[in-house]
Amino acid sequence: MIRPFVNELGDLQNKILEMGGLVETSIHNTIRSLVERDEKLMHGIWETENRINQLDIEIDECATRLLALHQPVAKDLRFLTAAIKINSDLERMGDLAVNLAQRSISLLSRPPFKPLVDIPHMSKIVEAMVRKSLDAFVQRDAQLAQSVLMADDEVDELKNTIYQELLDLMEQGQAEAAPAFDLIFIAHNLERVADHATNIAEDVLFLVKGIDVRHHHLSE
Amino acid sequence: MIRPFVNELGDLQNKILEMGGLVETSIHNTIRSLVERDEKLMHGIWETENRINQLDIEIDECATRLLALHQPVAKDLRFLTAAIKINSDLERMGDLAVNLAQRSISLLSRPPFKPLVDIPHMSKIVEAMVRKSLDAFVQRDAQLAQSVLMADDEVDELKNTIYQELLDLMEQGQAEAAPAFDLIFIAHNLERVADHATNIAEDVLFLVKGIDVRHHHLSE
Repeated sequence: MIRPFVNELGDLQNKILEMGGLVETSIHNTIRSLVERDEKLMHGIWETENRINQLDIEIDECATRLLALHQPVAKDLRFLTAAIKINSDLERMGDLAVNLAQRSISLLSRPPFKPLVDIPHMSKIVEAMVRKSLDAFVQRDAQLAQSVLMADDEVDELKNTIYQELLDLMEQGQAEAAPAFDLIFIAHNLERVADHATNIAEDVLFLVKGIDVRHHHLSE
Repeated sequence: MIRPFVNELGDLQNKILEMGGLVETSIHNTIRSLVERDEKLMHGIWETENRINQLDIEIDECATRLLALHQPVAKDLRFLTAAIKINSDLERMGDLAVNLAQRSISLLSRPPFKPLVDIPHMSKIVEAMVRKSLDAFVQRDAQLAQSVLMADDEVDELKNTIYQELLDLMEQGQAEAAPAFDLIFIAHNLERVADHATNIAEDVLFLVKGIDVRHHHLSE
């Protein structure tokens, strides 16, 4: 039995939202666990990663099946190609959440060498970017998508601040190389999650307004 | 005038090959410039990045247009969804090539602190992975795609060796933090390029054999 196209699109959208929610929760719990120095808060992160990978396959299959069965045009076609791209961004974010957890476990095995202020601040912005980019997708909300693009600059700045601070601590002999690296990679991976949320927001803008905002410097 | 579908597919394939060639050359020239300490070899890398970004947009437009105009099914549909995903991997590789160049410029501004052996070795493997993954795509060659998956493990090991060596040098006070970081990020970004080549090889295996090799641990 073929389900109505609009229901199928709704299912696809729900899977994407589920995936986004899992990514956001993984990142949130990992950073909380790092700040509170409580490894238990990372419990369940590997199961979550498995579910994210399963959703990756399901979403791809679903989008390809809908393209084949319904041969959509215009907006629906753009929605499905956007779904394929957003899915691939979410899957990478899932991988990055696992990397964050691995670095955090490594950090929790050593005594703390500095209070963490910028990292949880950065994480909060990044989590909001993930959530907003997907809300913008579901609600076809260009303004919300635009707000994600703007937040990306703040994340870049925070990453540079964290990087420079750790470099200084190391050069003054106040931080060991291995844990400082771990923190730098955590900031780096959070920035990469933000980049993926930005990609999603750009896909939403293309979906809603038909303007391609990627590589906008090309036309500057 | 509508061009025959098969010609349009050929054009799309050529654009993807052009993009892959540009990525490979950028990485090759950047690492050569780093090893030979000759910044001139990086000349033209920003123009190449612009061309890669232009191709990213062209390939997406082309694939979406072909989906809409010809409403392909089965193999052709899978080819076009693969093209959309491969395009997004190539675009990220282009960004990574730029990051490699930025880190290299930073390293060339300081005196060398160690001879570079593992990095050019790693780069050579990664460049071959990029080339092979796209050759496998064009020739629908599952065996070649499989060889890309196998090379990925070697790249991961090399990255870990480089990482550990630099960490040791820093902890023994034989390397400053900033240039050691630059080298670690270069190894890290080369590994990410290898990951993208692996994604492409997985897409090729799905295209040719219809088996999904992503997240294969799920079924283990």
